[in-house]
Amino acid sequence: MPELRKDPVIDRWVIIADNRGERPRDFEIAPRRSTGRLCPFCEGNERETPNEVQSVRDPGSSPNGPGWKIRVVPNKFPAVCDGDLGKPPAYDDALCHAEPAHGVHEVIIESPRHVSSLTQLTKDEVVLVLQTYRRRFEILESHPGLSSVMLFKNMGAEAGASLEHIHSQLIALPMIPSLQAAELQGAKAHFDASGRCVFCRMLLSESVSPRGVLGSERFTAFCPFASRFGYETWILPNRHVSHFQRITDDEIVDLADVLRKVLKAVETAVLPPAYNLVFHTAPLGDPPLEYYHWHVEILPAFAKAAGFEWGGGFHINPVYPEQAAQELRQTLEKTPESKDESIRQTEANSERLPMP
Amino acid sequence: MPELRKDPVIDRWVIIADNRGERPRDFEIAPRRSTGRLCPFCEGNERETPNEVQSVRDPGSSPNGPGWKIRVVPNKFPAVCDGDLGKPPAYDDALCHAEPAHGVHEVIIESPRHVSSLTQLTKDEVVLVLQTYRRRFEILESHPGLSSVMLFKNMGAEAGASLEHIHSQLIALPMIPSLQAAELQGAKAHFDASGRCVFCRMLLSESVSPRGVLGSERFTAFCPFASRFGYETWILPNRHVSHFQRITDDEIVDLADVLRKVLKAVETAVLPPAYNLVFHTAPLGDPPLEYYHWHVEILPAFAKAAGFEWGGGFHINPVYPEQAAQELRQTLEKTPESKDESIRQTEANSERLPMP
Repeated sequence: MPELRKDPVIDRWVIIADNRGERPRDFEIAPRRSTGRLCPFCEGNERETPNEVQSVRDPGSSPNGPGWKIRVVPNKFPAVCDGDLGKPPAYDDALCHAEPAHGVHEVIIESPRHVSSLTQLTKDEVVLVLQTYRRRFEILESHPGLSSVMLFKNMGAEAGASLEHIHSQLIALPMIPSLQAAELQGAKAHFDASGRCVFCRMLLSESVSPRGVLGSERFTAFCPFASRFGYETWILPNRHVSHFQRITDDEIVDLADVLRKVLKAVETAVLPPAYNLVFHTAPLGDPPLEYYHWHVEILPAFAKAAGFEWGGGFHINPVYPEQAAQELRQTLEKTPESKDESIRQTEANSERLPMP
Repeated sequence: MPELRKDPVIDRWVIIADNRGERPRDFEIAPRRSTGRLCPFCEGNERETPNEVQSVRDPGSSPNGPGWKIRVVPNKFPAVCDGDLGKPPAYDDALCHAEPAHGVHEVIIESPRHVSSLTQLTKDEVVLVLQTYRRRFEILESHPGLSSVMLFKNMGAEAGASLEHIHSQLIALPMIPSLQAAELQGAKAHFDASGRCVFCRMLLSESVSPRGVLGSERFTAFCPFASRFGYETWILPNRHVSHFQRITDDEIVDLADVLRKVLKAVETAVLPPAYNLVFHTAPLGDPPLEYYHWHVEILPAFAKAAGFEWGGGFHINPVYPEQAAQELRQTLEKTPESKDESIRQTEANSERLPMP
């Protein structure tokens, strides 16, 4: 039976309608063919990208040559440009307001090998990726005129990736994007009313709910109550901290493990594998916030957004989060190394177990 | 050069970055193949759908048999269900709030022929379609427990259509979707501050701007200043009216003509043709609102939404609205019947002509 669910942080409703998966389709869903062109992100093709601004390199290798593990380069086709700070707005009246697109748009190339997913990297390689993310945030904190950083990964053509080779993108802007602003506002309202961080409360309740997916020493993964997408999964640090860049070395090691396992389970459930992975974190210049809690959202491209989503900001999700979490837990239990950590539940809809 | 633009109604920024269209792609964009299964919407296959609740029929034909021009049927895979009104919420605490999915989900099958676009119907057929839309709104106004109606059309697999045969969908809900709520709130704030309807102001300025596309006696089409999608086009009635269902017979005839012409131009620009068409209208039970103005938004599936869009509510649009409008005007001028109505501009960025 369909159900209308309200997000606890922002004023956003979703319809969970598990009958919608049975709909007939005129169009086949097939993996996209690769065009087979030269990959600008592969080792040896460094000249195809702008010069690197950061890298993890073998001793003795030269910048913008081979011998690297991770490269950070400016986006060759940037959505925003550094250096426009202080220019006057191009339009500024009651109906038209525009600003120069000041900002930073970078690409983090996460492996010299032509692979497409974090699940194809070793745990140690994912640790290097997360350390690189942290370093970029630290550097952007002292960059003039920036308020927000969006760090995201588009995996798979169905999720909007234009290149197959594993990479993430980072867009830093002089303003707070509207969804992030709504999330901050909703979290603050919750804190003002209850004296508690809404995400800390979620950690306590979701980890022992039928929506729990995996609990490690330092992170918790669950399918959120008002999931917009089938198999949507959030990963929260167990420690309350508002800014991603305050992640500790121990937390990075733990998150590398959790990310690989959870993504592997999502890639088993969503075929062909396609998702957006988004880091949600507090604004750059803000002090530590007691009402906000950084986290990762994995948003599978399970059902295409259409008129209802774009017209109303209202999502129809064909998979109950409780069902999605159960499937993800089952996949995790079949993976020997993660068996101990998965949140096991014999009766998904009733039994509530403490965290391992 | 990229530009950051702010929507005049809701607090939503977009990045216009016309350099992004040159990006390399690993994945080919190919039209999806049809699965070739039986079409449940074709004439003769009426038993494949639930029983019709409204239709335009040839004299002497029987309901749910052949001999129709338009059929309205309940969605066989509904996202919401009538009859759940008054049931208690399934969840109701600080973190989880859910309500039974009370509402109406209908499909409007707009031709007995297996065509996919309004541009393949005659003007008289589109008039029948618009009259049917109006009638559904009138009927839903007296339906208990409903606040909003979302009327939308998904055209093309890339825009989320699951069936090719021409149809629209209507979802009526007990609450106002978040985007609609933000739009109403923004429009009211504009009215409170200026004493004027923000959409009436747009009509005056956009029709003579480089973003104007087509002006008829009763409707105006333009590419909005802060377009989220390439070739995004809005159609507004020249007369201030908040509720779509108050459209007059004369306006329906005019809109049928404008819709066909504008959609034809969009289908020439966006290949393969794919878009969402969404009716924006005031809440069902509201009196006429002086601050709100119903309109149609055509949202082409030109660039796929990805992590940035889903994570931040922030769109990157690779086509400047001024450029999009110029292309659409040029297509319209090549169409003999619409030549007189297109907003012609020799110097798109400077000359401002009065409406024809």
